[in-house]
Amino acid sequence: MRIHFDDTNLRAEMVGDAHGLTGAEIREFTPRALDALRGFRKLSEDGLYGFPHLPFQTAVAKEIAAYAAEVRKSYDTVCIVGIGGSALGAWALDCGLRGPHPVQGEFSAAFPRLVILDNVDPSFVGAAIESMNPKKTLVVVIAKSGSTAETVSTFLIVRDWMRRKLGDKAGRRIAAVTSRERGELAVIAARENYRVFHIPDNVGGRFSVLSPVGLLPAALIGADIRKLMKGAAEMTHSCWRENLDANIALRAALFHYLAWVKKGKTVQVAFPYSNRLWGTAFWFRQLWAESLGKARTRSGEEIHSGQTPVAALGATDQHSQVQLYMEGPNDKLFSFWAVKNFGAAGHIPRSRTGLESFDYLAGRSLTELITAERVSTAAALTENGRPNCTFTLDRVDEAHLGAFLQLLEFETAFAGELLNIDAFTQDGVELGKRFTFGLMGRAGYETYRERYENYQKKRQKVTV
Amino acid sequence: MRIHFDDTNLRAEMVGDAHGLTGAEIREFTPRALDALRGFRKLSEDGLYGFPHLPFQTAVAKEIAAYAAEVRKSYDTVCIVGIGGSALGAWALDCGLRGPHPVQGEFSAAFPRLVILDNVDPSFVGAAIESMNPKKTLVVVIAKSGSTAETVSTFLIVRDWMRRKLGDKAGRRIAAVTSRERGELAVIAARENYRVFHIPDNVGGRFSVLSPVGLLPAALIGADIRKLMKGAAEMTHSCWRENLDANIALRAALFHYLAWVKKGKTVQVAFPYSNRLWGTAFWFRQLWAESLGKARTRSGEEIHSGQTPVAALGATDQHSQVQLYMEGPNDKLFSFWAVKNFGAAGHIPRSRTGLESFDYLAGRSLTELITAERVSTAAALTENGRPNCTFTLDRVDEAHLGAFLQLLEFETAFAGELLNIDAFTQDGVELGKRFTFGLMGRAGYETYRERYENYQKKRQKVTV
Repeated sequence: MRIHFDDTNLRAEMVGDAHGLTGAEIREFTPRALDALRGFRKLSEDGLYGFPHLPFQTAVAKEIAAYAAEVRKSYDTVCIVGIGGSALGAWALDCGLRGPHPVQGEFSAAFPRLVILDNVDPSFVGAAIESMNPKKTLVVVIAKSGSTAETVSTFLIVRDWMRRKLGDKAGRRIAAVTSRERGELAVIAARENYRVFHIPDNVGGRFSVLSPVGLLPAALIGADIRKLMKGAAEMTHSCWRENLDANIALRAALFHYLAWVKKGKTVQVAFPYSNRLWGTAFWFRQLWAESLGKARTRSGEEIHSGQTPVAALGATDQHSQVQLYMEGPNDKLFSFWAVKNFGAAGHIPRSRTGLESFDYLAGRSLTELITAERVSTAAALTENGRPNCTFTLDRVDEAHLGAFLQLLEFETAFAGELLNIDAFTQDGVELGKRFTFGLMGRAGYETYRERYENYQKKRQKVTV
Repeated sequence: MRIHFDDTNLRAEMVGDAHGLTGAEIREFTPRALDALRGFRKLSEDGLYGFPHLPFQTAVAKEIAAYAAEVRKSYDTVCIVGIGGSALGAWALDCGLRGPHPVQGEFSAAFPRLVILDNVDPSFVGAAIESMNPKKTLVVVIAKSGSTAETVSTFLIVRDWMRRKLGDKAGRRIAAVTSRERGELAVIAARENYRVFHIPDNVGGRFSVLSPVGLLPAALIGADIRKLMKGAAEMTHSCWRENLDANIALRAALFHYLAWVKKGKTVQVAFPYSNRLWGTAFWFRQLWAESLGKARTRSGEEIHSGQTPVAALGATDQHSQVQLYMEGPNDKLFSFWAVKNFGAAGHIPRSRTGLESFDYLAGRSLTELITAERVSTAAALTENGRPNCTFTLDRVDEAHLGAFLQLLEFETAFAGELLNIDAFTQDGVELGKRFTFGLMGRAGYETYRERYENYQKKRQKVTV
C-alpha cells in the first residue's frame, strides 16, 4: 500500500505569498500541529473518539465475514436503507472496489447489485423497489440513532413490501446496524428476528465506514474486508507519528488549515482523476463539511469555520469547472486525487486516420492522457497562482481505499483540533429536524410547528 | 407548464441587511436589470448568441425525430461519446425524464440504456465497452470543435471496437454531432458515412441542450422532444418580458448578482429536492461556472467573478452538508429546486409498530416528508440569516424540463450582462489544454512542453 502527498504547489515559492504558504508560516505552526496530534491522541486513548480503533477490531470483521458467507447464496441484490453517514461509506467502497460507475447512471453488471435507498424522493424509492425481488433481496437498515425519519419511513415501506411477500420470514432477509444502547430500530429488530450488528457509541456516522456500517455492505458485495482493515491499520500507525514529513494526514491538515485561516481559501475542491474515487469524493464532502462547519470553538467563541467541500471529477470537469477555477475568485484550494495504475492502460488504436487532430493520439493510452491532463491542470492552476496539492494512490483496491479513507478521517480530526472545534458533533442540523418533526405531527414538537407558522406569517408580510 | 420562483427568503426583512437584499437595493438596480435584458436581446437578435432561438427550430427537431424513428429497432444501447457541454445535457434529460437514477449507481431497467462516455479513465471506458454489444449499440459522438482530445481518444477506441466487429458497416451505427464549418470529426464522418447533425456556430456547448447535442440523445431514448421544445419556447417568451415580476429569469439573475456583489455570497448551492433533477444540477454547475467565472470584464478590468456552484441533493445532503450550511461561513446563497408532484405519493404503511419514533410516520407519505424537510431546511437557514430562494416545478416532464433548462440559461446570460462579462467564452481552460497537447506530443505545442518542463524544474527547488 502506498499513498503519496505532494504539497509543492501549496507553497509561496510556486503560487506567491498571498496564496501560498511560506517556510516561516509552516515552521511557526508546526508545534501547533504536533500539539493537535497529541491532543487528539489523548481523546482517542480516553475512548472519546473511536474511529482510530476500528481497523484493529478484527473480531467484528470476522463476524461480518462469517455472516456474509452464510447468506451469500440467498440474494442477488443488497438493499441498504440509510442516509448520510449510513450510506456514503457503502457507496464509496462499492464505487471504488467494483466501479467505476459513471456519474450519470450505472452500466456495470456487478453482481450482486447494491441499491442504496438514501433519499425519500417517492419516485426514486418506488423505482428501486420495483426493480427488486423480495425473495432475492437482502435488506440492511442502518441508523445509529435508530430513529432517523428518512430511514424509518423508507424502512417501513421496504419492510411492508417484504412482509407482504414473505410474511414473518421477512425478518431472515433483514439485517440492522444500530447502536447497542438506544433507539427503537433495535426494538423492532429483536421483535422480528433481524440479524443485528452494532455501531460503537464513540463512532459517529461520518467516521463509521470501518465499523459494520461500511464493512457489512462491503462484505455482502464480495469485498475482502480484512484487506480493507489491514490498509487502514497500516495508515493509522503512520497517522500517529509525531513528524510532519512522515505523517501525511497531519501535514495535509496543517496545510489545509493554514490555507483557510491565512490565505482565505474558503473552498476545498476534492478533485479525483478516477471514476472509482468519485464515491469517495461524496463521502469526503460529508466528512469535511459536517466535521469542520462549526459556529463556535470549544471555548465558545464565534468562529463560523468550515471550508466548503466541492467534488469535481477529472478529466470530465475540466470541461465544466476549470474555467471558474482558473479565472474566478482565488478562494479555492485544490486537492487532486491521482491513481497510478488503473488496471488497464486503455490503448488507443495505432492505425492512423490522416487527420492531425486525431493522429497524435494514435498508439498512446487513456492512462497517458488522463495523467497528462491532471498534471497540466495542476501546472496551469499553479501558473495562475491557485494553490493545489496531490494525493497519489498506487491503485484503487481494498488496501489503498481502507488506508485513504482512514487518512482523510485523521486529517479531518487534526484540522478540527487546529481550529479548536468539536469535529464530532452536528448540532446545526437540529433546528431543521425539529421543524420537520413539528410539521409531521410528532409528539413533543408542537412548539416547533408554531415557530414554523410564525416564520410563515413573517414571510407573508414581505412585499417587493 | 408552471414554474414558480419564491425569493422572500433572500430579503433583508427575513435574513437581515448584512445578508439580505433591501427594497432600496432592488429598486436601485432594477433599471440595470432591464438594461441587461435589452442588451442581451440585441446581441441575440444580431445572431451573436443562438440559444434563445433553439426552441423555435422545429425543422431540426423533426429531422431528429424522423431519424430516431428510422433507427429505433436497431439498438438496445445508446452510447454517447462526448464531454462537458456535449454530455451533461443528455444526462440531465435522461435523469429527469427516465430517472431517477441514484447518484451511487443505477438500478433502473430503462430501455434503451444510455451510456455516456464522458471521461478518459481507462477502467471506466473499458467496463462500458465490455457491457455493450456492437451489433446492438448506436454510437453518438458529439464535439463542436471536432477535435476535443478526450472525445477523439475515446471515439478512436469505440470506433475500432465497432469496426473490428462490423467492418465498414460500423458507420451505419454511428451518428456525429459537430460544427458545420470546422473540425476533423466532420471529415471522418463524411468518409465513413456517419449520419451527421450540426451544432449552430452561435451556440456554445453549455447552451446547446436544445440543439442536436441534447435533442438527439433524448429522441433516441424515447423522449418527446417536441414537448421539450414547446416548454422551452413558452419559457423563452416570458424571459423576454421587460418586467421583474413576470420574468423570473431576470429576477433570479438580478437577485443572484446582488447577493454576489453586495452581500459576498461567493457560493451558490443548487439544492434539488428530487433525484430526477440531480442531473440538471450537474448540468447547471457547468453553465454557471464556465459562463460567470471570468478574470476580466468586457472592458478589460480585472474582476475574477464567479459564484462557485455546488450541487446538493435534498433530503440526502441534510445529512451531509447542512451542518456546514447552518453554522459555517455565511458565504452561500441556496437555490432550492422543488417539485410539487412526484408521480407517486410514496405511501408509508398505516400499520403501527407501537414505537413512538416510527408511528408518527404511519399513514403519511414520502411526498409529505420530503416537502416538510425542504420547507423546514429553508426555515432553519432563514432563522440563521442564510439567504435562500426556491424554484418550484409542478412536475418533472418534458415541458417543465425544457422550460427550466431554458430559464437557467437566460438567468445565466442576464447575470453575465449585469457583470459586464462575456458569458459565452472559456479562454481560461486553454493553458491546461495546451500543456496537455505539449505532453502528448501534438505538433505545434512544443513550446508548451518546454514551459511545463520549466515549471517542473521550479518545483524541484522547493524544499521542506
